[in-house]
Amino acid sequence: MSTPTFTDATTLSHHDREEGDRFAPRFDAHGLVTAVTVDAKTGEVLMLAHMNAAALRATLETGIVHYWSRSRGALWKKGETSGEVQKLIEMRTDCDQDAVLVTVEQTGRGAACHTGRVSCFYRAVRLEGGEARLDQVGGDPLFDPKAVYR
Amino acid sequence: MSTPTFTDATTLSHHDREEGDRFAPRFDAHGLVTAVTVDAKTGEVLMLAHMNAAALRATLETGIVHYWSRSRGALWKKGETSGEVQKLIEMRTDCDQDAVLVTVEQTGRGAACHTGRVSCFYRAVRLEGGEARLDQVGGDPLFDPKAVYR
Repeated sequence: MSTPTFTDATTLSHHDREEGDRFAPRFDAHGLVTAVTVDAKTGEVLMLAHMNAAALRATLETGIVHYWSRSRGALWKKGETSGEVQKLIEMRTDCDQDAVLVTVEQTGRGAACHTGRVSCFYRAVRLEGGEARLDQVGGDPLFDPKAVYR
Repeated sequence: MSTPTFTDATTLSHHDREEGDRFAPRFDAHGLVTAVTVDAKTGEVLMLAHMNAAALRATLETGIVHYWSRSRGALWKKGETSGEVQKLIEMRTDCDQDAVLVTVEQTGRGAACHTGRVSCFYRAVRLEGGEARLDQVGGDPLFDPKAVYR
């Protein structure tokens, strides 16, 4: 399998970036694009993470979603420790090509979040007397992080 | 109406940040959190943008979604020019509180993207002989940007 190649974003006009058929990711100063991950079955937003060129290539090449871990500074094959591997169904890019939308089949126990929950977005913001507070709305964890990450 | 207040993220333990009921947005070096915006009716991811403290406050206080425009360096009431105003249905935060998921009623013509399309994610990535290319999958624009942004 050949390693996927991208177009150099600096070579594209504004029009071609937004309307063209070249995938030319616009990496930020840290070499990253933002990735939003959605469950193919439910449409639920599971998580938000980042990809560098290596993560984009590995994801497209293997069909298994890879991110760049900013905290560890390393390529991150999602689910390598937890078993919560994500199979790539579709990748999209946005108008200005600095973000990707990754639709996945979430395997394992179906928990994308390291807390054991289905989605990282498990708390809703509400105002209480002018103060922003959080309500748990995402359901119980499907695994115990302490048992999974050791 | 009182201006919404948040908790200072640096005052929370790791556990309280992830499991607690305090909204304590973790702004990056530019004072921003990432915002993913989803259509309440269809569940479709519409766009990805950023919010600073002022944008978060304005959104929670008015129920109309505001972002921070990085290109203009200004508070951005979405739809002020185009009419594509977004009414806030729900805001969620993620496990480490550096991103929000904003569920909206997309008003106007129903096009969140400045290109006139429903969603900014209107192109899918495919590999063609090892080269990443884009296919238009998002449908036709609902308005003509040239006529709307003058």
